[in-house]
Amino acid sequence: MILEGAHRRSITRTEDGAGIRILDQRKLPWEVLWVELRDVDAAAVAIREMWTRGAPMIGATAAYGLAMALAIDPGDAALEAAYARLLETRPTAINLRWALDAVRGAVRDLPEAERAAAAFARADAICDEDAELCRAIGEHGLALFRELHAKNPDRPLNILTHCNAGWLATVDYGTATAPIYLAHDAGIPVHVWVDETRPRNQGALLTAFELRNHGVPHTVIADNAGGLLMMKGQVDAVVVGTDRVTANGDVCNKIGTYLKALAAHDNDVPFYVALPYTTFDPQTASGADIPIEERGAEELTMFTGPGEGGIATVKVTDSPAANPAFDVTPARLVTGYITERGVLDRI
Amino acid sequence: MILEGAHRRSITRTEDGAGIRILDQRKLPWEVLWVELRDVDAAAVAIREMWTRGAPMIGATAAYGLAMALAIDPGDAALEAAYARLLETRPTAINLRWALDAVRGAVRDLPEAERAAAAFARADAICDEDAELCRAIGEHGLALFRELHAKNPDRPLNILTHCNAGWLATVDYGTATAPIYLAHDAGIPVHVWVDETRPRNQGALLTAFELRNHGVPHTVIADNAGGLLMMKGQVDAVVVGTDRVTANGDVCNKIGTYLKALAAHDNDVPFYVALPYTTFDPQTASGADIPIEERGAEELTMFTGPGEGGIATVKVTDSPAANPAFDVTPARLVTGYITERGVLDRI
Repeated sequence: MILEGAHRRSITRTEDGAGIRILDQRKLPWEVLWVELRDVDAAAVAIREMWTRGAPMIGATAAYGLAMALAIDPGDAALEAAYARLLETRPTAINLRWALDAVRGAVRDLPEAERAAAAFARADAICDEDAELCRAIGEHGLALFRELHAKNPDRPLNILTHCNAGWLATVDYGTATAPIYLAHDAGIPVHVWVDETRPRNQGALLTAFELRNHGVPHTVIADNAGGLLMMKGQVDAVVVGTDRVTANGDVCNKIGTYLKALAAHDNDVPFYVALPYTTFDPQTASGADIPIEERGAEELTMFTGPGEGGIATVKVTDSPAANPAFDVTPARLVTGYITERGVLDRI
Repeated sequence: MILEGAHRRSITRTEDGAGIRILDQRKLPWEVLWVELRDVDAAAVAIREMWTRGAPMIGATAAYGLAMALAIDPGDAALEAAYARLLETRPTAINLRWALDAVRGAVRDLPEAERAAAAFARADAICDEDAELCRAIGEHGLALFRELHAKNPDRPLNILTHCNAGWLATVDYGTATAPIYLAHDAGIPVHVWVDETRPRNQGALLTAFELRNHGVPHTVIADNAGGLLMMKGQVDAVVVGTDRVTANGDVCNKIGTYLKALAAHDNDVPFYVALPYTTFDPQTASGADIPIEERGAEELTMFTGPGEGGIATVKVTDSPAANPAFDVTPARLVTGYITERGVLDRI
């Protein structure tokens, strides 16, 4: 996507090639702070303390972390120590382990002198592959958007999205946002309804930040508003990302996704899920088998943002709160799955 | 409901009988500030500047405002001036005009010396009638709650509500909250899921305040969470209020209500609308005929609450926002209408 006037990836090598540059997402959108990570410790901290987030970004950062460790000490012991150190930062992130395995596998049988360069090359390839994957998702979604726009060519194509399945979570393009960026760049007048996405507000904070910087017209709405907009014919399609799609096609995604899928179904608005095919989990039979993460109540009961005297935190309520992080959208409510392989009716 | 340890109405006469006492709802829940209104000017300011809100409370405050005006000058000119002054405070509030007409009608043919007392008596009656109306809604809802609880007697009865159709908007009990208060008082172990109700947060602020004070167990949730809770069997019924029910039974209520009705329908959870029968508007054919109020974007883009240094306002997003205030729930999604006449399948 475009940021600060130029097309950028969310993770790049530093000019000397020895480190990486990412955004400190904890500051976004109020401060756009690029940070350089120059050793495995910095990479581990960035992952663990969520300077970066999203499966592809975590994997890419860890891959470079291993390469940076090997640049200092290419021995087997150092390789294993760095692998273990990076893996423990987010123990449940499947993509993290996959990326670390890929880099370790690429260097283990090489002479020590060649390992660092090979690791950087493999990490570069992981990034290129992820960007290409998202671009392919975007191309398939773009074809869909062209068809939808052709039905009402005299008005903007209105897409509603939930949470942030965007550039910030991937190396480039995002998943749900990829068709949006490609459509905008192709001259299709796309407008995005951005769900605020309580309680962590990833829509109002991150997706809106992305769209604003890329120049895509968009409007933030309360999570409550999508049903009315669909009823009034103001939404042409809903496109969301996903954390996991089960064998039967059920979609686990940010809490509130299910409500938008219900409204889309009730109003004949197509509901699409954008995902790399690797997010499909045929080992899990259905959404009923997915445990739902319950996060801390303070994400709901406290609100942080910039005030008159700088960033401040205010109270939302004195009452107890519950904070389930995900819900399950039954496959029967999904119009199609936008993947790098094409738009699939069934997955 | 119970507040500060005793059963209270939200509007009462002052001890000397010459004024009224209401809560300044602009401060709630962070400060419980009772204010005395002792003349028509104070009543007009309280209505216009939303110290008080909700159709019954606006009507009752205006009725007393007229009585207080007549206590100073019971002449015809003063009566008409006070009537006009109060009516213009919230020109679209139908109940405001109704209450003013009721008081004016009760005094117009009386000798001037009797007018103030008659006006106060009529205003008292308006309050008593409203409290009785809400109590009757509560009784009918209570019978329903008893049946629902009997199905799963070993666990709390879980009610989900949206926005604040509560004590604060009425003279006592509220509408959607009336069955909750009566059930709690009757010993039914009721637990309430309170939708935060973005963007104005009436659930997290006002409904949670009421339930906390009355001692009803409750949990605030993001508006996004209700669908998952229903899917998981954690909601026995949804009960909401309404601003207007049209001839065909469509329900106009706070934005987001429709999404909860869809989720209830999808999970076989009963969805009830609590209302005084006067909220039924047979002159409007269906929800499609109701214009939806679009409120200021700043209700969504700014967030106010108590911070370290007192009440503070922080920014939610730098992007444009839309803020439709109401949506329409089609009659087909409504299980029943809880009114003072009984629980009606159709209205």
